[in-house]
Amino acid sequence: MDVSRTAPPTEMDPQRWGPTDRAEPLAPAARGLVELAFGLAETPPAPLGTPPADGLPAAVRTALVDLLGPAHVDDGDALRRLRTAGKSTPDLLRARAGDVADAPDLVVRPADHDQVQAVLDLAVAHRVAVVPFGGGTGVVGGVAGGRTAREAGLAGALSLDLVRLDSLLALDEVSLTATLGAGLRGPAAEALLAEHGLVLGHYPQSFEHASIGGFAATRSSGQASAGYGRFDAMVVGLRAATPRGQWRLGVAPASAAGPDLRQVLLGSEGAFGVVTEVTVRVRRAPSSARFGGWRLPDFAAATTAVRTLAQEGLLPTVLRISDETETALNLADPSAVGEAASAGCLVVVGVEGSARHVARRWEEVAEVLAAHGGTDLGAGPGEAWRDGRFHGPYLRDALLDVGVLVETLETATFWSGVDGLKAAVTDAVSASLGDGTLVLCHVSHVYETGCSLYFTVAAPGGQDRAARWGAAKAAACEAIVAAGGTITHHHAVGRDHRPWLHHEVGDVGVGVLRALKAELDPTGVLNPGVLVP
Amino acid sequence: MDVSRTAPPTEMDPQRWGPTDRAEPLAPAARGLVELAFGLAETPPAPLGTPPADGLPAAVRTALVDLLGPAHVDDGDALRRLRTAGKSTPDLLRARAGDVADAPDLVVRPADHDQVQAVLDLAVAHRVAVVPFGGGTGVVGGVAGGRTAREAGLAGALSLDLVRLDSLLALDEVSLTATLGAGLRGPAAEALLAEHGLVLGHYPQSFEHASIGGFAATRSSGQASAGYGRFDAMVVGLRAATPRGQWRLGVAPASAAGPDLRQVLLGSEGAFGVVTEVTVRVRRAPSSARFGGWRLPDFAAATTAVRTLAQEGLLPTVLRISDETETALNLADPSAVGEAASAGCLVVVGVEGSARHVARRWEEVAEVLAAHGGTDLGAGPGEAWRDGRFHGPYLRDALLDVGVLVETLETATFWSGVDGLKAAVTDAVSASLGDGTLVLCHVSHVYETGCSLYFTVAAPGGQDRAARWGAAKAAACEAIVAAGGTITHHHAVGRDHRPWLHHEVGDVGVGVLRALKAELDPTGVLNPGVLVP
Repeated sequence: MDVSRTAPPTEMDPQRWGPTDRAEPLAPAARGLVELAFGLAETPPAPLGTPPADGLPAAVRTALVDLLGPAHVDDGDALRRLRTAGKSTPDLLRARAGDVADAPDLVVRPADHDQVQAVLDLAVAHRVAVVPFGGGTGVVGGVAGGRTAREAGLAGALSLDLVRLDSLLALDEVSLTATLGAGLRGPAAEALLAEHGLVLGHYPQSFEHASIGGFAATRSSGQASAGYGRFDAMVVGLRAATPRGQWRLGVAPASAAGPDLRQVLLGSEGAFGVVTEVTVRVRRAPSSARFGGWRLPDFAAATTAVRTLAQEGLLPTVLRISDETETALNLADPSAVGEAASAGCLVVVGVEGSARHVARRWEEVAEVLAAHGGTDLGAGPGEAWRDGRFHGPYLRDALLDVGVLVETLETATFWSGVDGLKAAVTDAVSASLGDGTLVLCHVSHVYETGCSLYFTVAAPGGQDRAARWGAAKAAACEAIVAAGGTITHHHAVGRDHRPWLHHEVGDVGVGVLRALKAELDPTGVLNPGVLVP
Repeated sequence: MDVSRTAPPTEMDPQRWGPTDRAEPLAPAARGLVELAFGLAETPPAPLGTPPADGLPAAVRTALVDLLGPAHVDDGDALRRLRTAGKSTPDLLRARAGDVADAPDLVVRPADHDQVQAVLDLAVAHRVAVVPFGGGTGVVGGVAGGRTAREAGLAGALSLDLVRLDSLLALDEVSLTATLGAGLRGPAAEALLAEHGLVLGHYPQSFEHASIGGFAATRSSGQASAGYGRFDAMVVGLRAATPRGQWRLGVAPASAAGPDLRQVLLGSEGAFGVVTEVTVRVRRAPSSARFGGWRLPDFAAATTAVRTLAQEGLLPTVLRISDETETALNLADPSAVGEAASAGCLVVVGVEGSARHVARRWEEVAEVLAAHGGTDLGAGPGEAWRDGRFHGPYLRDALLDVGVLVETLETATFWSGVDGLKAAVTDAVSASLGDGTLVLCHVSHVYETGCSLYFTVAAPGGQDRAARWGAAKAAACEAIVAAGGTITHHHAVGRDHRPWLHHEVGDVGVGVLRALKAELDPTGVLNPGVLVP
């Protein structure tokens, strides 16, 4: 998958998804459509406020400067504003209102695992919260700072920026494993691997900005998960700093030596430790690739076809269904609307690998899609999707700028529950947000036994967008829990999903999470407020 | 894979692997070979002793009879002898010496999850150990009873036989998931699925006798793991009874809702709870299958070829390398010796699926094997392996009968470490057991990043077989740890691997396991002595 055109991030905008220089207004064509659907109300971000005064004990600051050097201990307002929150719509709406009250007291940039461990030890000794920061693209309230720490009775909050842990630490070209620093962003990790003809293959929508450590800590899943697997399936080893000391896991591809404790660190969101290094399975870069689109008659036919591919072992590398509404609007990529909008559901397929694999798999996939009423739309829709694959969140900024309420949410369930879950979430969100709400849905992660459902919601805005979304999100979570889906397939728990986690893991599971937290973080300094109910 | 000829177990022999009527002496041809290599010393099992007097409080027995009915509370000596130990060579040598001092006080057979929970609650209230019993085929000291309980300060031990939890509890033919009772043996589970045209595809060597719950609790891996995955990869949901109450997990094929707690129950060996139901991914029964053998020039060529298959996404359903020694002796299947023994390493390949998949994959596999110097030996060696696939442990009994010291052990590592690990274990075991030791090795579980190594060790016997094996096993574990492999790829920890677990999970991991144990089993009644260091 060609990611070479993905530029590394420049200065990020605390009120938007990406770098300041990537903000762009709605395209004129889309603007007309949006006006018709939701109305237009230019709502530019307010000036950002001033973060609260740094309340850390002076001894902590001095010790951190001694440890890391003054260049890597930063209390500048600009940087603290950038570390105040993640990138959910509620996060952005707060930032757009100028609210930076939750800024951390200090941003620290350790150079390596040992410095991370030393910062943690200091934080434990002084009861200061540590919020790991990778790419800052989280959307579940997992990135927060000073206010939360003070509410938890701690002396303040450090934003622990892992950006300097950006090396390819080890490469085993026989076993095809690579040990990556947790701070490596997606494009940088792929670039380091590409020098050796290798590829990781993890392309979430946040790929441009998100980090290896973040992928691990949140159980990220990428757009090529059908071919490369979820990120947790790529991980063979982990190294973390914890208040109990260093934790290294992963001596073999698979083991029966008790519970798989890697799976305790994966998805632990900085609450059990700070992941500093991740050893991943890599692959030789594919020599061939083909992308294309099909039109399936409807969502039922498309999910049946895709289920057949998964259950017959015929998955391509990328597989994605847009439901009828998303197909018609194709908000993620307006340039393809014309072709795909005539009717039905767009299915995007990408196959990578050897030329023979691509040819054979393409033939197999085409047969199944055709058997379910699919019409081949040619390469166009597939390549359009590929070109626009990381663009969605930029479009969200543009929509927020004109007053629309827009956000996404996702879940997953077994195949037999997909239709019911999709209807339940759509109904719940629509009922909550009222007339004029648009709910698009796509399937982008497919398994033998089920799939993910990813919803994009847009509604007329107003002054109370944050509160209205809060109510809609709660209604969606209730609907998901009632329908038996997971509260999150690839976005983690954070603060936002925490009220519903007990439905998923049970009272016994809640007890286990609390026991893990008490064991690994007895003073409660690690990312307080996330994950553990 | 045709398992229809696999008869359900009849009465099991506490001094042998299988049912009493399956014991068979060494074939005459093998007998000559064994005499040459190790000498023959007929060593029939001694009569079994009498289990210690039941030391349980009378109130416990009365309550259990009230709960389960008298037919399902059994203190007969015959049954208690059968529940005294698992099926490792040390277990069998103790049993063959007549030693049943570790028999449980009572064998109870609850009917369903609720009765399991009620038994657990009783055991907690009276501080009685609960040792879950599935198929009893464990080989790591995970099945033990009364003596262990008394050493742990408990009032006695119940063998919790899950045999009555033998139903197909739910089947979702759309999602292809099945919920199986934990007590279902391999053949019974497959037979229930076969009625619906489905297959689980888990065929460990213990398949005839081992249970679904045991597969989960020990992270079993089957002979078709290349095609169907390890058992832990098949599990989508679990239900367990714990001292904290019922625990249900698994609402979706995949989730980012925090750590994957299913992976805490998988491999927990009865120490954290009793798995009562397992929801697994199933597949439609394959319409086509082909098995065959190749001769590769040597182990290095064979592992390179097999690694290539794994890393290029060309794995068949069954893939197995016998090293030069195993190939020459082919102890697992003497009938094939003639054909395969000429030189090199035997690689067995099986492909199942649609006719097209079988044809294509066969061609792809053949190309890779040929490119690495492989010679096609035709269907014979593949089918001979398939016919004898569950036979190894019966042969062990026959060898123990004639005084040979014989046992197996297994590990796994990344590809770059395979040769070093194989040599280290072979050397350690050979040095420990001395002249005349034969160490065979095969690879039977293959991943993109590495593989398992399974060793069969045979040596001249003598009066001290148990002690000599104990020393050799310790030497092997030390060698594995030093070489960086896992102490067990698919046999679990039990008591036998517990001294080495901290090397694998670290001090932090040991703390986590202890915290999990304290949370889930605060009175320490669950299978005391296993897993947790």
